Amino acid sequence: MRTHEAGSLRAGHAGQTVTLSGWVARRRDHGGVIFIDLRDASGVAQVVFREGEMAERAHRLRAEFCIKVTGEVVARPEGNENPEIPTGSIEITVTDLEVLSESAPLPFPLDEHLEVGEEIRLKHRYLDLRRAEPARTMRLRSDINRVAREVLHGREFVEVETPTMTRSTPEGARDFLIPARLQPGNWYALPQSPQLFKQLLMIGGLERYFQIARCYRDEDFRADRQPEFTQLDIEMSFVDQDDVLELSEEILAGLWRLVGHEIPRPIPRMTYAEAMARYGTDKPDLRFGVELTEMTEYFKDTPFRVFQAPYVGAVVMPGGADQPRRQLDAWQEWAKQRGAKGLAYVLVGEDGTLSGPVAKNLSESEREGLAKAVGANPGDCVFFGAGQRSSARALLGAARLEIGQHCGLIDQDAWSFVWVVDAPMFEPVEDMESGDVAVGTGNWTAVHHPFTSPNADWIENFEQDPANALAWAYDIVCNGNEIGGGSIRIHRSDVQERVFRLLGITEEQAQDKFGFLLEAFKYGPPPHGGIAFGWDRICMLLAGADSLRDVIAFPKSGGGYDPLTSAPSAITAEQRKEAGIDAKPGAKKGESGEKADKQG
Amino acid sequence: MRTHEAGSLRAGHAGQTVTLSGWVARRRDHGGVIFIDLRDASGVAQVVFREGEMAERAHRLRAEFCIKVTGEVVARPEGNENPEIPTGSIEITVTDLEVLSESAPLPFPLDEHLEVGEEIRLKHRYLDLRRAEPARTMRLRSDINRVAREVLHGREFVEVETPTMTRSTPEGARDFLIPARLQPGNWYALPQSPQLFKQLLMIGGLERYFQIARCYRDEDFRADRQPEFTQLDIEMSFVDQDDVLELSEEILAGLWRLVGHEIPRPIPRMTYAEAMARYGTDKPDLRFGVELTEMTEYFKDTPFRVFQAPYVGAVVMPGGADQPRRQLDAWQEWAKQRGAKGLAYVLVGEDGTLSGPVAKNLSESEREGLAKAVGANPGDCVFFGAGQRSSARALLGAARLEIGQHCGLIDQDAWSFVWVVDAPMFEPVEDMESGDVAVGTGNWTAVHHPFTSPNADWIENFEQDPANALAWAYDIVCNGNEIGGGSIRIHRSDVQERVFRLLGITEEQAQDKFGFLLEAFKYGPPPHGGIAFGWDRICMLLAGADSLRDVIAFPKSGGGYDPLTSAPSAITAEQRKEAGIDAKPGAKKGESGEKADKQG
Repeated sequence: MRTHEAGSLRAGHAGQTVTLSGWVARRRDHGGVIFIDLRDASGVAQVVFREGEMAERAHRLRAEFCIKVTGEVVARPEGNENPEIPTGSIEITVTDLEVLSESAPLPFPLDEHLEVGEEIRLKHRYLDLRRAEPARTMRLRSDINRVAREVLHGREFVEVETPTMTRSTPEGARDFLIPARLQPGNWYALPQSPQLFKQLLMIGGLERYFQIARCYRDEDFRADRQPEFTQLDIEMSFVDQDDVLELSEEILAGLWRLVGHEIPRPIPRMTYAEAMARYGTDKPDLRFGVELTEMTEYFKDTPFRVFQAPYVGAVVMPGGADQPRRQLDAWQEWAKQRGAKGLAYVLVGEDGTLSGPVAKNLSESEREGLAKAVGANPGDCVFFGAGQRSSARALLGAARLEIGQHCGLIDQDAWSFVWVVDAPMFEPVEDMESGDVAVGTGNWTAVHHPFTSPNADWIENFEQDPANALAWAYDIVCNGNEIGGGSIRIHRSDVQERVFRLLGITEEQAQDKFGFLLEAFKYGPPPHGGIAFGWDRICMLLAGADSLRDVIAFPKSGGGYDPLTSAPSAITAEQRKEAGIDAKPGAKKGESGEKADKQG
Repeated sequence: MRTHEAGSLRAGHAGQTVTLSGWVARRRDHGGVIFIDLRDASGVAQVVFREGEMAERAHRLRAEFCIKVTGEVVARPEGNENPEIPTGSIEITVTDLEVLSESAPLPFPLDEHLEVGEEIRLKHRYLDLRRAEPARTMRLRSDINRVAREVLHGREFVEVETPTMTRSTPEGARDFLIPARLQPGNWYALPQSPQLFKQLLMIGGLERYFQIARCYRDEDFRADRQPEFTQLDIEMSFVDQDDVLELSEEILAGLWRLVGHEIPRPIPRMTYAEAMARYGTDKPDLRFGVELTEMTEYFKDTPFRVFQAPYVGAVVMPGGADQPRRQLDAWQEWAKQRGAKGLAYVLVGEDGTLSGPVAKNLSESEREGLAKAVGANPGDCVFFGAGQRSSARALLGAARLEIGQHCGLIDQDAWSFVWVVDAPMFEPVEDMESGDVAVGTGNWTAVHHPFTSPNADWIENFEQDPANALAWAYDIVCNGNEIGGGSIRIHRSDVQERVFRLLGITEEQAQDKFGFLLEAFKYGPPPHGGIAFGWDRICMLLAGADSLRDVIAFPKSGGGYDPLTSAPSAITAEQRKEAGIDAKPGAKKGESGEKADKQG
């Protein structure tokens, strides 16, 4: 149906007769001559309908008609070249035209800079994908997969497909469920990740596993979450943390080369504690400075009631002293929306004098040394967070990001990578993000997941100080985004049992939920660990996209709704009956297994 | 944790001190010296505990303990080499031992030739995978994926992940369903294939798509079916059948090179009609001859009532005339189990005389010319099928396979490939396999799926003779297994509507089930087509495995039951309530969509 791809034609093709197939991207009429930009997957070429009959037949062509043309490649007349497209030195004088299919008027124009709601774009995603940017993004994602797999195959990793109709994996979110028609009353769950299966593969002696795996979490979809998402999932045996990090860095280096960036290696590491202290977050954006300064000690005798707190910290906004009043008010509003009472601040005048409502509440000596203590210069604004350490730091960390954006401190072309290591094993249940589901019923929940190993310092005594126990767990952070995370796993069943106990998982619950994993751990499990990369987010960063939805071929919009297919949808009474949705769980598992066996 | 992989050690390493990690595969005690076969993913090496203390510490080692040893590589004493393993010329004299984890007594021995039920192996699949053959199969499957992707990336195919929580795709089986908690009363479906999405990607201008895709069918699991399975899914635009076949052959050639076989190309083609006539099946095993002979015309005036049928055919069993009576009876039993009344036969004596119960019912002239007409030699047995053409041919086709097996006519090392092309568009609903679900309510159902295009001869008039209308549809058959199939799709909405009408799909049903696809077809859809390969089956053939379960890391056994995790299982009342399983579908789709949009 074609001899050439439209985007491949160059001056050297002049004189050749070619056949192209593609879409009418743009049409211009010039005194009886019709110019059409013919687009296919490779690019665009200008085709010209000059002669009387051809021009007449071309008159019916409209945007996005699918056509096949034959004609001669000719050099464009001097002065008519278009240096902005690779085929800009030639055009095709059409001698034959076939309309392969027509197009109804488009619901939105397929321009590069599209000013149309996302819902309508997603409803007609197949039209959206004809635009250059989404098409480029799909191709980039494919290349991202290719490069990662090349690295992994090169190191003899084995790609294994793990089941997606399985038993619930306890990883902190709700499971999606599937009724089992042949075992009425029983349900499969879609996996939140291949975590348990990849550990079983390590017990199975596979040693090096990977999979670009579809994962499922039934969460209350916040802004940018999808019910199904993708991760590059990796697990290795007989390794320590350094091995996992080194491999990960080779993969990331390969990926970022796709966008022309060489990641300096090794990627720096920072402990979780340091990240929280200096940046107020476990995913610090290191493209700019502006660090938090702890001021608890400085204000230990302060007369200012607000600063008589377990933690006081500060962050400096360079040049922020001359913000107008309404902008300072807006900061208060911003802080309140984040659940804080407000955002205390002090303005440092050009002569060094402090102003703002907080200043007068401080003692004279506190005022005197303040600018120096927080590293503020004349003309800066100092924001304070005071209260519980974790919430005050989180507020200051968020303020830091606002400052970075607001003051243009972030080089948008820069890439900054950092490993955040030595993560805590546990967090108090009350600190969990809303919507997450604790695995056990204890006061502590696992920060990563309950199979994460305490590090060498804590493996024998984590119960004595759960708040400070550290894990062999690591996250990789890029420009303030967590793009991957993993851990060395527990491979000793005694340690696993102790962790379950601390999490408030009874032996019975443990047996019920992952008895099969505990059973597997009885048979010589190897030391192992791994990592999972948030594939959608990595694609988003590399594509320079604003939303995860941009890097997914057919994404869901909010609430898990698919504007294209209108899924989810109602089912018929017959489907419901047939699927056994309302059946009581009948036979016991063992029995149904035996029954199944006979069928098989 | 290791300096070398066990399987990599050779005589050249002698004198080096190495550290290995792996499993105790076998242990032998010889007068105080303990020999252990240490196994890791790379292979096996013999480690020796010679000295008093070492041998003593090694005494506690049992099968499948996970250990780390350090020692010196030494050449084995002359006469003690083991030429059967690559490391057979050396052994390691251990100077340090660390037990990484212990193993409980195994539920079954991990021997090569395992005489243990499949259920127990699948329950402990992680132990099963430590055996050489399953481990090799997992690695082969990973290579199969790699090779296919290399071919496709080399031709600029784009890998796209399509949704798995979606709307039902009408492809002849039941859907698995997922309740949507955030849209109570509504359900997602797991896709039976990415069919609709890959067609949408073609409308989206992607031109070359592939995916190793997980697919789901809620079927009554016959012997060797899995509720979730994998296909290599491919779609191309601006192509005809030859293009799809050529690409497919390059992929297959790459795959079979993994097992050292070069597939002669082009792979021969045979029409569906010819396959049915000559082999009684649309997936002929061409590793041996023994074709069907149609005898309808020959017996057109026969006095034998049984042969007064719309179709009579014959197949010859070489040397089958001397089968004992009980074996001839067994053939009758075999035919009855397949739903036939029996299997008529004639024995050709060494002197050319015919015997058997049928012979005397034939006319003399029929007897005289029979052996020649069916190509039988003295000493052969001729089996007959008479009745409706399709069922009689199916019986003879199955008999042909039995003959091939029974008479040792099949070269087990041979590979035979054939394309079966020119498949019929439609089949009568009453001929459908039980368990399949018709898409419409008409008398005809689609042989492939309802998006398959009639070929050029039939596209304008398939309604006039649905029984004989042919499609641009093709299956690739290897050694009698259908390992892939596809078609050129309909890209004209008028043709699609006519096909729906013939299938008895009303406009309303069509809109409800795939209105979004029909809408997409309004916007300049390109001519396109594709193929899907049955990946599990291809892996099975290449691995030389007997069952699809052997090539799946964690397969389900019969009835969709997973012996490892005991999935599916009961859910709690809380899960049920939370998932909205019993909610009435509330808001209309449009409304929920809008609502969803605001949330997003």
